[in-house]
Amino acid sequence: MQAIQLSIETVARAQERLLETLEQMTLEEANTMPQPIIKSVTWLIWHTARELDYQISDLKGQPPLWLSADWTSRFGLALPDDTQDWQHSPADAAKVVVVDRQLLIDYLAAAVDLTQAYLQGSSLKNLDEVIDDNWTPAVTRGARLVSIIDDAVMHSGQAVYTRRLVIGK
Amino acid sequence: MQAIQLSIETVARAQERLLETLEQMTLEEANTMPQPIIKSVTWLIWHTARELDYQISDLKGQPPLWLSADWTSRFGLALPDDTQDWQHSPADAAKVVVVDRQLLIDYLAAAVDLTQAYLQGSSLKNLDEVIDDNWTPAVTRGARLVSIIDDAVMHSGQAVYTRRLVIGK
Repeated sequence: MQAIQLSIETVARAQERLLETLEQMTLEEANTMPQPIIKSVTWLIWHTARELDYQISDLKGQPPLWLSADWTSRFGLALPDDTQDWQHSPADAAKVVVVDRQLLIDYLAAAVDLTQAYLQGSSLKNLDEVIDDNWTPAVTRGARLVSIIDDAVMHSGQAVYTRRLVIGK
Repeated sequence: MQAIQLSIETVARAQERLLETLEQMTLEEANTMPQPIIKSVTWLIWHTARELDYQISDLKGQPPLWLSADWTSRFGLALPDDTQDWQHSPADAAKVVVVDRQLLIDYLAAAVDLTQAYLQGSSLKNLDEVIDDNWTPAVTRGARLVSIIDDAVMHSGQAVYTRRLVIGK
């Protein structure tokens, strides 16, 4: 086991927790925001997949799967493709209504696969490379990867709390 | 940057999120469970520190800091030292009332330091070693480390939701 495997498997834990959470709910329950400031489980899964997809695709210098594999039309959300999910208002978040459970599972799987393959192929030299100098300190590839992984896992924990608020357990 | 640094910094993100969340609340708010099945922010921080401390100490073959550095008497909780936090009932969880904010910050810091130093010193050969054969498949050191990291980050996400439920933002 290489050290990078720890990060690859950490992403897998986030995916597992999100899927286990979804499995315990009807789709209507999963689409429910228990309060305006608490996202639905479908929002949390969709957003996790999006943040993995958009940020890893950016690191690879390619368009996100959301566009290139046409997830956008399959989801058919009433939101623009470049919606800023990370700062969604309650009204924006409420527009993430998923009508096909498998679609959500599949997009998350595609985004996780993309992320894990990228981590597997990342070289140690690459991790120190500055990839975004709009911040102080400048963001290295390694720091961006940490953000990507952290965001997935922390949202998976939030999904458990949303589930408890919606279905009471 | 070595690949293990990704895991070390992922733990740091969990700590940052927990501290930022705590900072936005009075201690009374932080001690509040918004619903019986949603833990307080102090519970979440205490538990995160405990799971890091107990599991890393176990991997090191030493007693947890909770006992060896006497955090137990400083916290003075109405719970036994071997309380099973991970399966706390609402009544158990309600007993985690922290009267000194700095104590909580310091115990979390001690547990994070312990974890990060352990990760830094872990060797690739060590990661494949079976350390718990009570499960199928048997748990390797690497898999246990993934659990430890994942648990910290996912609870940090839950703390944000608890804060929103308690203070409305």
